[in-house]
Amino acid sequence: MNNKYFNKKIILSNYPVGLSKKDDFSVVTEEIDPLNDNDILIKTKYVGIDAALRLLLRDSDDFLFRVKKDDLIRGSIVGEVIESKNPKFSDGEYVLGSLGVQKYCVSTGEDIEKCDLNLANPEFWLSGMGIPGLTAYFSLLDVCKPSPDKNVLITGAAGAVGSIAGQIAKLAGSKVIGTTSSDEKCKWLIDELGYDYAINYKNKDWFEKLSSVSDKRLDIIFDNTGGQVMDESLKIIGMKGIVLLCGSTSQYSENEIKGPNNYIWLGTMRARLQGFVIFDYEDRYEEARINLSKWLNEEKLKMPTHLVEGDIDKFPEIFEDLYKGKNYGKFVLKLKD
Amino acid sequence: MNNKYFNKKIILSNYPVGLSKKDDFSVVTEEIDPLNDNDILIKTKYVGIDAALRLLLRDSDDFLFRVKKDDLIRGSIVGEVIESKNPKFSDGEYVLGSLGVQKYCVSTGEDIEKCDLNLANPEFWLSGMGIPGLTAYFSLLDVCKPSPDKNVLITGAAGAVGSIAGQIAKLAGSKVIGTTSSDEKCKWLIDELGYDYAINYKNKDWFEKLSSVSDKRLDIIFDNTGGQVMDESLKIIGMKGIVLLCGSTSQYSENEIKGPNNYIWLGTMRARLQGFVIFDYEDRYEEARINLSKWLNEEKLKMPTHLVEGDIDKFPEIFEDLYKGKNYGKFVLKLKD
Repeated sequence: MNNKYFNKKIILSNYPVGLSKKDDFSVVTEEIDPLNDNDILIKTKYVGIDAALRLLLRDSDDFLFRVKKDDLIRGSIVGEVIESKNPKFSDGEYVLGSLGVQKYCVSTGEDIEKCDLNLANPEFWLSGMGIPGLTAYFSLLDVCKPSPDKNVLITGAAGAVGSIAGQIAKLAGSKVIGTTSSDEKCKWLIDELGYDYAINYKNKDWFEKLSSVSDKRLDIIFDNTGGQVMDESLKIIGMKGIVLLCGSTSQYSENEIKGPNNYIWLGTMRARLQGFVIFDYEDRYEEARINLSKWLNEEKLKMPTHLVEGDIDKFPEIFEDLYKGKNYGKFVLKLKD
Repeated sequence: MNNKYFNKKIILSNYPVGLSKKDDFSVVTEEIDPLNDNDILIKTKYVGIDAALRLLLRDSDDFLFRVKKDDLIRGSIVGEVIESKNPKFSDGEYVLGSLGVQKYCVSTGEDIEKCDLNLANPEFWLSGMGIPGLTAYFSLLDVCKPSPDKNVLITGAAGAVGSIAGQIAKLAGSKVIGTTSSDEKCKWLIDELGYDYAINYKNKDWFEKLSSVSDKRLDIIFDNTGGQVMDESLKIIGMKGIVLLCGSTSQYSENEIKGPNNYIWLGTMRARLQGFVIFDYEDRYEEARINLSKWLNEEKLKMPTHLVEGDIDKFPEIFEDLYKGKNYGKFVLKLKD
């Protein structure tokens, strides 16, 4: 390594209480060590802001993979290879990996994948071509199986996964209803993403509206939020319906996580609450990405990516904004050069 | 009809608050009308005491099939045909049906089945050969699929369904753990029904005990109770595990039904909370009963039936005792002649 590189990384300084704040995080600057054989030095270009991170920041051993004080904040990034001692990677290539919120990353090549920029632009590898798009793709098409006779509810519909999931359910011909946190996002879901109905769950009558627009019970509840919206919706789950547990964002920053009190409707309706983890599908990512990119290029699918430009230390602010519901699609920090 | 028959039936007089009390029910006496063509007059011999009834007694339209004030209390009975104007049924035959808690029932034959007493004694048609046995049989063998490498937890293990389910899981070779409400019932589960482990959930350390005896995570949680026992157990649900929602008895008499706060473990573990209703299997009851009766006669399966003798007006007391956990297997009121 001829040049010296100074990394800036975001670490956890306090366990957040409720919504995270700026000073729950710190920036650490350190020099990058010389590369070993097979090492690849990557300059981060885009950082994905991931809602599920909040669950890992809890001061509790109740959950796996927790982030402890002074640990690097976990997150997916897209970056450019700027030096490589690994024959499989060359300078200038774009790569994707869960390498943490930092300006530079060193990888041995085992925890990264190449981004084929012919398939989609780099930022899309954190949204529609990344974990959110793949999650929506497999959990819907492989598990929920939407079809023209089905009613689909997407909670957190304007989020990273929801914004893709709703479109895929529409491509399958289903009636698609989304819930989100503002009238502006409702309009966006309908006008830009083709949702049939969008409901602002902050309005008192949201459940009556949901019941009236769904006209029959819900065959699929694609749940990104948990909490009251999912819980109430269980009252109208359909016969042999499925509630796909994609995320529980409404609960991650609560002191006590609350489950769905209406779960006994699952019994009555022979329905199920189904867990899902995308990593079970790793050997099929390529197949999915070819389809997702095809739909993108044919303008059948948008990959909503909410870019915010700034330095790495802008991360805490965007993470806070994510929990305030400010994003349209996947929140991504684009690092300034 | 040459004789006059005076029916005694149990109706709901008050919506119970918490545990039901004797005066939440009343006895009504009335003369049976003359039979019409196709009618069958049945003298009740055995009344099944069903925990799920408590959910239907809530003063709320939130649940289907509710029992309202002055309605006949619902329940399955086994009775003897004492007069028949229906060519398909003859005097002296034993029949099974959900005909309500009353001394005599009139049926047109469509809501009853004949009990083949060569297969099992009449009282078993309310336990192992009835809805509890059929529920255990199909929900385990068709949905949960126990096998020798699996850990199975049965909550409410000494109840009507649990006491059969545990034995069927043992027949399939699984390691079977049960939870119940007393040390005496724990002993019974192990000594009489062959459970590998039984845990009194009223002991403070029940969850530590469960974690230690299960040695690996739980592949199947067969849940009859809901509440804290099911909720805590979710923390050790296994990869792609199943929680079969058979009942939620701990919640039926609560003011507010509570769901499982640890539900997000289903996500992490790709597990599911699966609703089940036995009526979907009606066309396969015969097949199941042949197997259940075979196991019974080969002494591979017990059909625990907790008989209490008395008049029909003993029903409220036994129903209260059911919710106090006094039963070993299916609680059945045997009517005095």
